[in-house]
Amino acid sequence: MSFSPLLEELIHSLRALPGVGPKSAQRMAFHLLSRDRQGGKSIATALQHAMEHIQHCQQCRTFSEVPRCGICSNQKRDHHLLCIVESPADMLAIEQTGYRGLFFLLLGHLSPIDGIGPQDIGLNHLQQRLQQEVIEEIIIATNPTVEGEATAHYILQLAKQAKVNCSRIAHGVPLGDVLEYIDTRTLSLAMAGRERYQYT
Amino acid sequence: MSFSPLLEELIHSLRALPGVGPKSAQRMAFHLLSRDRQGGKSIATALQHAMEHIQHCQQCRTFSEVPRCGICSNQKRDHHLLCIVESPADMLAIEQTGYRGLFFLLLGHLSPIDGIGPQDIGLNHLQQRLQQEVIEEIIIATNPTVEGEATAHYILQLAKQAKVNCSRIAHGVPLGDVLEYIDTRTLSLAMAGRERYQYT
Repeated sequence: MSFSPLLEELIHSLRALPGVGPKSAQRMAFHLLSRDRQGGKSIATALQHAMEHIQHCQQCRTFSEVPRCGICSNQKRDHHLLCIVESPADMLAIEQTGYRGLFFLLLGHLSPIDGIGPQDIGLNHLQQRLQQEVIEEIIIATNPTVEGEATAHYILQLAKQAKVNCSRIAHGVPLGDVLEYIDTRTLSLAMAGRERYQYT
Repeated sequence: MSFSPLLEELIHSLRALPGVGPKSAQRMAFHLLSRDRQGGKSIATALQHAMEHIQHCQQCRTFSEVPRCGICSNQKRDHHLLCIVESPADMLAIEQTGYRGLFFLLLGHLSPIDGIGPQDIGLNHLQQRLQQEVIEEIIIATNPTVEGEATAHYILQLAKQAKVNCSRIAHGVPLGDVLEYIDTRTLSLAMAGRERYQYT
């Protein structure tokens, strides 16, 4: 047996969502149909609008339906500070720390094995920005993965060429964690990046 | 900071899906926007159609966009056998066992504490069917929960009144499970419902 064609189509299409398999898709469809048709319609409308109208900010490449996003066009922010992140989620995380500079989104990382080169993550655009704008410091906040580190290294070279100060966010022991369970590599970085107490 | 209005709206609306919190909704939105806009549009279309057109089968109450669903209108099925389940997912599970009779969906269970009475789960409609159709056996397959058992008991009374044979699916030890970890109540049911070997 299968469900009615429209229901089958709904269950099938919901599987495009990340982490949603056949069972979850079925549960979602039943839930919306039996308890929240209004919610279902809202999702349909929001998705339709978002898929059609959301593009990338021309300056920082984040998702935005206007050519320049709210952050890039905000004159109160520090336009001399540029933080480079991989994704909009990373941007939000950094934003929540109270950072008030600008961003640049890679929307990925260098990964030659997948055919992702500097152009694919907008590094040519970043190079242009470094030449055209007055940027005092670049803060590289790519993920501490192999690809993230490679990307950071590449960006460092661009910054060197453009003679712009460049820093990398600190790696070390996260707050609330237990030293015993931290991997050796992180602990090595934490030891190497130790900060000396200043006696006053 | 917040995202652009359309993106915020998308993330907010996705939370209507069951088991989707703020972080998952964000992840889903980013995934669709960056990697699968076509998939996002398909979900929007499928949802719109499903929410508007899917109603309930007039006979068995399952989800269907036509007045009588594929199972109820299939003349090859055994129209004298009626299996009563709580949800479309239960219906699918029973269907997969090779059952070839008809179904009746409660779309819930009796729960006086939540104000759900017999009318709300269509038992008046079931009573009508028992009087009007020639049904040889009712198989009650509600969940083995307190509410499911109460509902089963109520249906048994309806079947008695209509003088229709009535059975309940067996409860016992599931295949592949270990006796040691089965709860006592299930094991009692398994002991009470034991089947005697037939010597040939």
